[in-house]
Amino acid sequence: MNTFGHNFRVTTFGESHGAAIGVVIDGCPPGFSLSESDIQPFLDKRRPGQNDLVTPRKESDEIQILSGIFDGKTLGTPICLLIHNTSMKSADYDELKDLFRPGHADRGYMEKYGIRDHRGGGRSSGRETAARVAAGGVAALFLAQYKIRIIGTLLQVKGETTQDGIEKVIRTARDYGESVGGIIGITVSGCPPGLGDPVFGKLDALIAYAMMGIGGVKAVEIGSGITAAVMTGSQHNDQMTPDGYLSNNAGGILGGISTGQEILVRLTVKPTPSVRTVQKTIDTQGFEKTISVQGRHDPCIAVRIVPVAEAMMSLVLIDAFLEQRKINPHFMQEPRFQHE
Amino acid sequence: MNTFGHNFRVTTFGESHGAAIGVVIDGCPPGFSLSESDIQPFLDKRRPGQNDLVTPRKESDEIQILSGIFDGKTLGTPICLLIHNTSMKSADYDELKDLFRPGHADRGYMEKYGIRDHRGGGRSSGRETAARVAAGGVAALFLAQYKIRIIGTLLQVKGETTQDGIEKVIRTARDYGESVGGIIGITVSGCPPGLGDPVFGKLDALIAYAMMGIGGVKAVEIGSGITAAVMTGSQHNDQMTPDGYLSNNAGGILGGISTGQEILVRLTVKPTPSVRTVQKTIDTQGFEKTISVQGRHDPCIAVRIVPVAEAMMSLVLIDAFLEQRKINPHFMQEPRFQHE
Amino acid sequence: MNTFGHNFRVTTFGESHGAAIGVVIDGCPPGFSLSESDIQPFLDKRRPGQNDLVTPRKESDEIQILSGIFDGKTLGTPICLLIHNTSMKSADYDELKDLFRPGHADRGYMEKYGIRDHRGGGRSSGRETAARVAAGGVAALFLAQYKIRIIGTLLQVKGETTQDGIEKVIRTARDYGESVGGIIGITVSGCPPGLGDPVFGKLDALIAYAMMGIGGVKAVEIGSGITAAVMTGSQHNDQMTPDGYLSNNAGGILGGISTGQEILVRLTVKPTPSVRTVQKTIDTQGFEKTISVQGRHDPCIAVRIVPVAEAMMSLVLIDAFLEQRKINPHFMQEPRFQHE
Amino acid sequence: MNTFGHNFRVTTFGESHGAAIGVVIDGCPPGFSLSESDIQPFLDKRRPGQNDLVTPRKESDEIQILSGIFDGKTLGTPICLLIHNTSMKSADYDELKDLFRPGHADRGYMEKYGIRDHRGGGRSSGRETAARVAAGGVAALFLAQYKIRIIGTLLQVKGETTQDGIEKVIRTARDYGESVGGIIGITVSGCPPGLGDPVFGKLDALIAYAMMGIGGVKAVEIGSGITAAVMTGSQHNDQMTPDGYLSNNAGGILGGISTGQEILVRLTVKPTPSVRTVQKTIDTQGFEKTISVQGRHDPCIAVRIVPVAEAMMSLVLIDAFLEQRKINPHFMQEPRFQHE
Repeated sequence: MNTFGHNFRVTTFGESHGAAIGVVIDGCPPGFSLSESDIQPFLDKRRPGQNDLVTPRKESDEIQILSGIFDGKTLGTPICLLIHNTSMKSADYDELKDLFRPGHADRGYMEKYGIRDHRGGGRSSGRETAARVAAGGVAALFLAQYKIRIIGTLLQVKGETTQDGIEKVIRTARDYGESVGGIIGITVSGCPPGLGDPVFGKLDALIAYAMMGIGGVKAVEIGSGITAAVMTGSQHNDQMTPDGYLSNNAGGILGGISTGQEILVRLTVKPTPSVRTVQKTIDTQGFEKTISVQGRHDPCIAVRIVPVAEAMMSLVLIDAFLEQRKINPHFMQEPRFQHE
Repeated sequence: MNTFGHNFRVTTFGESHGAAIGVVIDGCPPGFSLSESDIQPFLDKRRPGQNDLVTPRKESDEIQILSGIFDGKTLGTPICLLIHNTSMKSADYDELKDLFRPGHADRGYMEKYGIRDHRGGGRSSGRETAARVAAGGVAALFLAQYKIRIIGTLLQVKGETTQDGIEKVIRTARDYGESVGGIIGITVSGCPPGLGDPVFGKLDALIAYAMMGIGGVKAVEIGSGITAAVMTGSQHNDQMTPDGYLSNNAGGILGGISTGQEILVRLTVKPTPSVRTVQKTIDTQGFEKTISVQGRHDPCIAVRIVPVAEAMMSLVLIDAFLEQRKINPHFMQEPRFQHE
Repeated sequence: MNTFGHNFRVTTFGESHGAAIGVVIDGCPPGFSLSESDIQPFLDKRRPGQNDLVTPRKESDEIQILSGIFDGKTLGTPICLLIHNTSMKSADYDELKDLFRPGHADRGYMEKYGIRDHRGGGRSSGRETAARVAAGGVAALFLAQYKIRIIGTLLQVKGETTQDGIEKVIRTARDYGESVGGIIGITVSGCPPGLGDPVFGKLDALIAYAMMGIGGVKAVEIGSGITAAVMTGSQHNDQMTPDGYLSNNAGGILGGISTGQEILVRLTVKPTPSVRTVQKTIDTQGFEKTISVQGRHDPCIAVRIVPVAEAMMSLVLIDAFLEQRKINPHFMQEPRFQHE
Repeated sequence: MNTFGHNFRVTTFGESHGAAIGVVIDGCPPGFSLSESDIQPFLDKRRPGQNDLVTPRKESDEIQILSGIFDGKTLGTPICLLIHNTSMKSADYDELKDLFRPGHADRGYMEKYGIRDHRGGGRSSGRETAARVAAGGVAALFLAQYKIRIIGTLLQVKGETTQDGIEKVIRTARDYGESVGGIIGITVSGCPPGLGDPVFGKLDALIAYAMMGIGGVKAVEIGSGITAAVMTGSQHNDQMTPDGYLSNNAGGILGGISTGQEILVRLTVKPTPSVRTVQKTIDTQGFEKTISVQGRHDPCIAVRIVPVAEAMMSLVLIDAFLEQRKINPHFMQEPRFQHE
């Protein structure tokens, strides 16, 4: 199951230390302007090595379009986007070949498949998300034509909520060979009402699926989120007036359908599992071992998940957008403007 | 999109005040013992009118098997389960015909479809979940053969965590025509390792999709959940020894794949939106109105969502279980025992 | 796999001698007028006992709408259509319990599932097609709004091509306890250009899938069909002029996409396998037996497949129609007229 | 819709004159030996320029594995196979830019998408089938472990049925700038009973879908095919004895389920539409034109469709094979031998 979406179907492929990673987008509407330079900025936001808060690994993450575009426009045929792997230091991982890293998918892969690519997490590496970000970029450019905008922000890291506090706690973690968790907020503005299906295809359910499908995410909240548990009905309900809603506890989605208000989502990201601190583990034979993970790891993976979460939100929305066209042939027919 | 699952495909149908609600299960393995009396107990747990904490509406929710069973065993063909609607007081809803209820899907349905069945929420009614519970019961009986067990509990209501405190706060809400939110915990024991797919079909992502797809759920947490945001990597990682894991912050799922530990999920449910308290709203023409919802509503919908959440978890697990058979033909071949 | 279609998704259920057969339609556009009396005429065309060319079994095949309709219009929610089984003479099949009938699916069901409902073919009975015809009727009514019309005709039976010859050969077969094969033609008029996807979702491929999915169909031809094998390129190509195409060897589909010409399909149906003539077979233990199938069987099943083939064509077209709305938001937006 | 299959999901991408064509295979079982040199022979069979019966275009069609393989074995993760386009003479197509070629998908693409890549057919080019052949090769290697073998043969060209006659008629067509149609037979040996689903997922329906999804195919027949129309029931039924079936009119499939006999399929392929003979057509503005297609075209496209049809059959069978594992956990558990 490496495909996301029913209408704008995104299939990613590639291991972190294989020849390339990439994505095939099937169902992108035709006649839409698109070039490599439109997509590259989305990847650049996710790319490592940009500042001292993230891993210093150098990955150029240069996107290449293999199909589906002709004369600068989408053809309506599958768009294949490829990113060659260039910064692969497989030897770094030799010592991890027979060890299961705590907090990682290593052991799960062996239990599931009976085989795994141990180099850098293989398919479970965060690197796979570059392909999602590329596809999400295409979706975001499509949605921008209709003035639908998605913005992600790092809200909190280990309790700190200011930029200064966040940076300080991340640098401290890095210096100690440790890592820290965090909370990301995603806000969608300009979303039309009517997106999402009322039963199993609820828009909030699809968002939860998309966000929890990012490695390291442990909680997804919509609108009021966990604070709904301590509210009464009259506090939680968003009252309506002819001028609009008086609050947004719903987070822009009621009964699984977008209301036209801002969509508000929060996701909690666990601390990066790769730490230098010595931990107990077992090897592939089941014997007792200890492990101290060396190498170039992100001290706070939440930082780099922000553009991934934006991408996943774009993928959810474009899929629901195209779905709604089937139901209502008059739905937002014309792009309000071409993306710049 | 009224179908859930890829292998054990569940399609529900029916409006709360139509002739019937029901479900078609496609992909249930053949040769499995199943009768109406096996499924009925699951529905009885969800049925209203059982005590003074829930709505006093009387619904018999009697299940009828229309197809897919012969001589007491599943045929491998689609199983249609039907529940006739018997306690329909459509007239109760006449005054709501032209009003949008705050916190409800009423307005969303109009925006999406241009038409709605206003009687009792129609398709968005909690009543639709009876069909899910029926299908989930079939799944749970299948899983029980392999000693996989799912148990849901109401953990918290408006901050109260003891049975006494919970009951008191619910009765108070009911007496004031108000409602309260809550938190439900779901625990799965006996889940084998290897369930779930590593990228978009992550087991935790499918659980988040399933749980957020229940009306009123505003947050889904796996394992450590939102507390992961304030932890360090070495605190959060579940260290391994030859005797097992030393903790379960992962909640039984790493990299999207079950580890064999208990699966731990928490969901936050908003307070029931139907309250007597007067609230501002608009009518279908957009004019300013007030509303006070009368009638037989649950003061804490979380109480009745417990069996629904168990059902959705069963549906996620059976789907992942059957998926794993394709990958690994030796996967848990024999039921360990027949369900009692 | 009991679901057909991606956008207008049709799931049938039910065994021939169970309580009922039926269908759930998910994805029917909202706001469309629909009642039981609109659908019943489609079923009446398939219903047995109408003249002496078909089985004299009496089945009322009365359709009941359980969901998805409110005030005479579709809600956009799942439509469940039910047909109760009333003419079940299960005892007729007792002697067939342990015998495999030649030309039937009996043995395949046992090999596949390890269990079967032997009464009247169970799920493999032609009776299941009543559910398809009901769903196809809904699709046909939708398409008729856009002046898309589907007409099936029995073209040939055992070489006879006139109504008189056809009837005579069928009556002779019936009198001898035998059966005969035939060829059905399906013509679609008013189909807009642009339906169908160019690679795996070719319109002709979907038609072939739909038609070969009717029990007893052994061949599907589009346009020139098998005669294409003896033609040259310049003979086969349909030349274009400003006034239209000069021929229709393509059968209305080129490169998997409808051209706007009439869609022309032919299907070959095998003779009904249930015959009185004594034949060799084996029992469920593998022992040598002979069989002479008694009872009320159609001497030419092709006669009754005509409305089923029309239904399947309607299902293919509505699905492609809704798919095209996603690609092109301006596609045939308004129904040209409401169905009468 | 560029994906084929539910369990072994194959997504192709690429235009004939773009940078590359390729395929992503999702759902390939893990632990299976696979290398580029295993797959290349399948492509070599389809490759043009091999003898004087086919187009003299030179395409190396060299396969490259981008993902999903580690240490010579499948990982269970998506396998991306890439073929770079090297023999692209786009200029050849400049004069066709504003002309619709009779018998081609050119006009359909414009009607569907409002845009097309006119160079060499773009996505509708036969070149796309190279990607299917690559994926089909992987499937065939998997199936060969279980001694399931698929063999395609060119049975007939313009009425000729001997190798000599076939070659002569093809050379004559080529010399005259014309083309000829033909009939291909596909035989599957070693197929276990029980594959295929009884209603919409019938094995013969899936085969018809797969075969009619190859460009140029106008008819698909199973077993007796169109001759079933002139047979009686007792002639057509395949009688059973303890030693096996006495005939195979069913073509190895009854009621949609494989019987264990050989699967027999025939497909009729139309003559290649690109001919030098002058034909009437219109340009993209709708004006009257004539056309004589020059260039390196196959005089009988049926010749080159043989390996494509084998590939599509392999894809149908592996998908049904994996599906059956879900139903029956004991189904053919062990490969009988590793592919050589």
